[in-house]
Amino acid sequence: MSGLVWITPISGLIALLVAGFTASVINKYDAGNDRMKQIAQAIQQGAMAFLSSEYKVLVIFVAVVAAIIGAVGFFADVMHPMTAVAFLFGAACSVAAGYFGMRVATQANVRTAQAATQGMPQALRVAFSGGAVMGLLVVGLGLTGVGLLYIVFGDDGVGKGIINGFALGASSIALFARVGGGIYTKAADVGADLVGKVEAGIPEDDPRNPAVIADNVGDNVGDVAGMGADLFESYVGSIIATMALAIYLTSTSDVSLVLLPLLISSVGILASIIGILIVQRSGGTNPSLSLRIGTFVSGGLTLLFTAGISLGLYNSWVYFGATVAGLLAGIIIGLLTEYYTSSDFKPVQGIAAQSQTGAATNIISGLAVGMKSTVAPILVISIAILVAYWIGENIAGEGVFCIALAAVGMLSITGMTVAVDAYGPISDNAGGIAEMAHLDPKVRKVTDALDSVGNTTAAIGKGFAIGSADLTALGLFAAYAASVKLEDVSLTDPNLVVGLFIGGMLPFLFSALTMEAVGRAAGAMVDEVRRQFKTIPGLMEGTGQPDYTRCVSISTQSALREMIVPGIMAVAVPLVIGFALGKEALGGTLAGALVTGVLMAIFMANAGGAWDNAKKFVEAGNYGGKKSEVHKATVVGDTVGDPFKDTSGPSLNILIKLMSIVSLVFAPLFI
Amino acid sequence: MSGLVWITPISGLIALLVAGFTASVINKYDAGNDRMKQIAQAIQQGAMAFLSSEYKVLVIFVAVVAAIIGAVGFFADVMHPMTAVAFLFGAACSVAAGYFGMRVATQANVRTAQAATQGMPQALRVAFSGGAVMGLLVVGLGLTGVGLLYIVFGDDGVGKGIINGFALGASSIALFARVGGGIYTKAADVGADLVGKVEAGIPEDDPRNPAVIADNVGDNVGDVAGMGADLFESYVGSIIATMALAIYLTSTSDVSLVLLPLLISSVGILASIIGILIVQRSGGTNPSLSLRIGTFVSGGLTLLFTAGISLGLYNSWVYFGATVAGLLAGIIIGLLTEYYTSSDFKPVQGIAAQSQTGAATNIISGLAVGMKSTVAPILVISIAILVAYWIGENIAGEGVFCIALAAVGMLSITGMTVAVDAYGPISDNAGGIAEMAHLDPKVRKVTDALDSVGNTTAAIGKGFAIGSADLTALGLFAAYAASVKLEDVSLTDPNLVVGLFIGGMLPFLFSALTMEAVGRAAGAMVDEVRRQFKTIPGLMEGTGQPDYTRCVSISTQSALREMIVPGIMAVAVPLVIGFALGKEALGGTLAGALVTGVLMAIFMANAGGAWDNAKKFVEAGNYGGKKSEVHKATVVGDTVGDPFKDTSGPSLNILIKLMSIVSLVFAPLFI
Repeated sequence: MSGLVWITPISGLIALLVAGFTASVINKYDAGNDRMKQIAQAIQQGAMAFLSSEYKVLVIFVAVVAAIIGAVGFFADVMHPMTAVAFLFGAACSVAAGYFGMRVATQANVRTAQAATQGMPQALRVAFSGGAVMGLLVVGLGLTGVGLLYIVFGDDGVGKGIINGFALGASSIALFARVGGGIYTKAADVGADLVGKVEAGIPEDDPRNPAVIADNVGDNVGDVAGMGADLFESYVGSIIATMALAIYLTSTSDVSLVLLPLLISSVGILASIIGILIVQRSGGTNPSLSLRIGTFVSGGLTLLFTAGISLGLYNSWVYFGATVAGLLAGIIIGLLTEYYTSSDFKPVQGIAAQSQTGAATNIISGLAVGMKSTVAPILVISIAILVAYWIGENIAGEGVFCIALAAVGMLSITGMTVAVDAYGPISDNAGGIAEMAHLDPKVRKVTDALDSVGNTTAAIGKGFAIGSADLTALGLFAAYAASVKLEDVSLTDPNLVVGLFIGGMLPFLFSALTMEAVGRAAGAMVDEVRRQFKTIPGLMEGTGQPDYTRCVSISTQSALREMIVPGIMAVAVPLVIGFALGKEALGGTLAGALVTGVLMAIFMANAGGAWDNAKKFVEAGNYGGKKSEVHKATVVGDTVGDPFKDTSGPSLNILIKLMSIVSLVFAPLFI
Repeated sequence: MSGLVWITPISGLIALLVAGFTASVINKYDAGNDRMKQIAQAIQQGAMAFLSSEYKVLVIFVAVVAAIIGAVGFFADVMHPMTAVAFLFGAACSVAAGYFGMRVATQANVRTAQAATQGMPQALRVAFSGGAVMGLLVVGLGLTGVGLLYIVFGDDGVGKGIINGFALGASSIALFARVGGGIYTKAADVGADLVGKVEAGIPEDDPRNPAVIADNVGDNVGDVAGMGADLFESYVGSIIATMALAIYLTSTSDVSLVLLPLLISSVGILASIIGILIVQRSGGTNPSLSLRIGTFVSGGLTLLFTAGISLGLYNSWVYFGATVAGLLAGIIIGLLTEYYTSSDFKPVQGIAAQSQTGAATNIISGLAVGMKSTVAPILVISIAILVAYWIGENIAGEGVFCIALAAVGMLSITGMTVAVDAYGPISDNAGGIAEMAHLDPKVRKVTDALDSVGNTTAAIGKGFAIGSADLTALGLFAAYAASVKLEDVSLTDPNLVVGLFIGGMLPFLFSALTMEAVGRAAGAMVDEVRRQFKTIPGLMEGTGQPDYTRCVSISTQSALREMIVPGIMAVAVPLVIGFALGKEALGGTLAGALVTGVLMAIFMANAGGAWDNAKKFVEAGNYGGKKSEVHKATVVGDTVGDPFKDTSGPSLNILIKLMSIVSLVFAPLFI
């Protein structure tokens, strides 16, 4: 093994050091007055309460899976028992990233609110630093983990699938964090809105609303921890899939290709750190511009470094080409998402215009925009796949490997992407705290400006998350196919066809289950808020104290209960298909789920984002503005879009990756 | 060639004779008073005006395609020039079925209204006879056409792909009839409702509404002619695909397997005629029961006859088994559709309950029901595929052939299915005529009862149409794969993967395009109706005469204009992919489109049907009944569901079949 491998954990550790330093800097900022501290503490306690409840369920789940893997490995001799250890390690790393990242985010929110009293640049710095900690934890723990496993187990760790356990661990946590978090955040949001805004007629983020803390907690558990776990999974999944393909498919060379994804990810971390520093030091008053410059610098540097690696170490520009294809595809998909979901462009404005004839036409046009928005990203991904393959196959005979490498390229700047993404909910929270603590309206204006940019970056982040989940799942799928030696099959093989149908159907079922879960959880929240308004004396007058904790605990309990069925489905279906119908059918199932999963995820995320911004477009004074009939119509679309964009859509990323990694880990049993 | 082949055109001709006789019987029924005759004439003229406008566009389209096929066949030597003749013949047969079937349907509607003055049994007989003519024309012309082509060209006609031209002709007409008809019917319906019911406050089917005739015309062009052309395409497509597979894949036997699908379809026609006679003679007062008995008798007899053919002629029960699998799957999918869309069951009642919290929850629960409703049909189809393959492969080594045969089995009772399906819109029209002619309310009560049963049978028919389109497309796909000698491919072949993605995306794009088309066409209709209300003096008072023709012509023009883009897409994409990326990518595209096309079709059709009946459930007095807030919420869902269930969903059947048949016909160019 080349000594170069040590670059990997070292880069990871650097990221962790920068994260730790940034966190300590954030902590030194002023947390504002007592009222603010009190509110912030309630949010943090709520978030931590969710995590600790989640971990209680998680521990059982992880222990059972680890025991199964260990037992199979020990007795059946087809799986290496150390896979169980790697699994536990992967789960632990993801948990740590989520736990510490969210902890810092819930410290940064109140400090952002306080910094906003001084102006935009100060507030941007705190909010973005909070996001940066999450981003650096994700890539730092991810790369350190994979790097150490590779150093300990070597090529055998890859060839015998030990390292796959790490990705499965990450996936398991992502399932809980993204699906559970997605249900939590929308149950709280819808519950708070339905009773507070609609029935009681009090504004958003009003402290009299018993669900207001749960709503703010939801932003953290859903958009910070959930999103972080999702990208942690993609990040390590893409690296591990590429390493596996290097072992299975490629010929040996001077410097092993197994090392390549690790090296690209290492330089990506360094580039991300530089990008983060630029945003932090920018001090500008245009947050959107600062974030964009940071992202482009990270991307540019990564490409520069990768060119060096590709040409210097491997004496070929092939790997550089594949990385470019992936990274460019990721950025283009993000920009396309912005086109379909921002009120600056035609699609959203069209939905607003259609809302003039009522809620039904608002819904129809939103659904049509969502469906149409699948076209361009699918073509971009397709081109990236063909280009990466074409370069790889024709020059080095390593086409499939290069497709997986494109995923690594796309995800190389994950540190920066997560930072940009997590800054949104922190700003959103800061605005809520400013409102609840009755700060000067100009503070709220600053946080609103940050939040508005955050909405755009969140949409872009969602597009990026879907695109990367897609390529990662494809990489894992290729690794599965290579590991079970899935021979060439006939496209009319009935097992394959049936697999495609069943796999294709799963995202529809998964989406229906998660949408219904939000409905039930929100219903429970509505009941509780109504009960408090009725039974707590003086609540509306501001003299009674609402029971925030109770709402937090209802969200927590419903989220964990509701994710059991979809969660079991994601893990069990590949195993059932693999055992019952064999490896070809499982291949078909993965391919079918991948195709419709990506399509449904793009459709739902973009329709939801477009509805949201069509409402905001009307609220900005178009077609009659707030309280008009048109606005009412757009509220219907926005409400439908909530579970679309924040629960069901993002959860599909987890479904397709988790199914692939389960198949890869348990592949030896299907041969 | 065995003399048995003559059974095919003879059965077809018998069906045509029975159709002709039934039509003459219908014509002898009393057409009611002058007012009724006048209205009926307006509907008939409108329907025929649509057809003749459609034919003008059609002729150009068909001529161009025929010329291309002929030229390729003549010069390039890879395609037989006679394919162009078969293509024209197929188009002509489908046009004839649609033309005469709709003509009779528009004669039966007014006679049903008149017969309803005498009671339910009389009205049922006329309405059902009208549907039966359509059903018999579809199977009669379809089987006569295919049979004659086979007699003329023999096995060579199949092997050289001449006969595929017939299926392509049927597909081309289906594209115009189903997509154009679907846009027409919803533009008129939504336009009539929005201005009439909502703005002017006049009831449905009120003669003062200028769009009322167009609305009734829409029932005929969409639900009679469109549905008929869709099933005509499936019917001949499944037979031709199975014949092709018999030539490509199976070994010869005493009685050629090419003959088998023709024989099964022949006995299916005879069984359907018996079933139709039973319904006509039933004279009962429970139309639902009569229709069900007729369907089960047809199915049972078909199986009995098929058992005879399978054992008697081929000395094997294999083919009987495959037929059973297909026919059972078709019936079960129909019943499942009923479960998800009838107000007697939980899903629809759940949507109604969710509507208590407003339009947004109505939409979310409807979408969730639609998505969930994909699960069971997909599993049923999967089981049918596996069973048919397993029987065929293990016993006769003819697995893929037997999958196609299952499609033939499912479609063998198409005569009966179409009759049951087309009876619905005839009853619906009869109710409209009764309303417009101010007949005794008890007449409307009879037609309403018939119509209500018709809604259920329409939902079942839609499920059946999707299931059969699915298996037909799969058969055509298998024929394509066999004809281009699509070798076994790796599931990670990037061309295949990209094909799957692009193919999977097409149904999303197609649905978005057709939904937007309905929106625009309905908008044009709304403007015209508003204009007439404003400018024609005395219209609301009943002294002025609305300009029905103008509304009919607006619907016609918009429908034809709006179907151009999706239509070109369906034809062009397979050719572009085939030429640009090759046969593997095209195989992936067909598979991807098949999977998501079926899923989206089921999702959209069932969500639409469920929303419709949730509204009716509330109107029946639940949750506050008509004019309540809950009712308003259900109206939103119903309006969203209209293009879902009557335009976009059914059009997807055409998309997947047309793409497959285009690929099959032009396959020689991609080798």
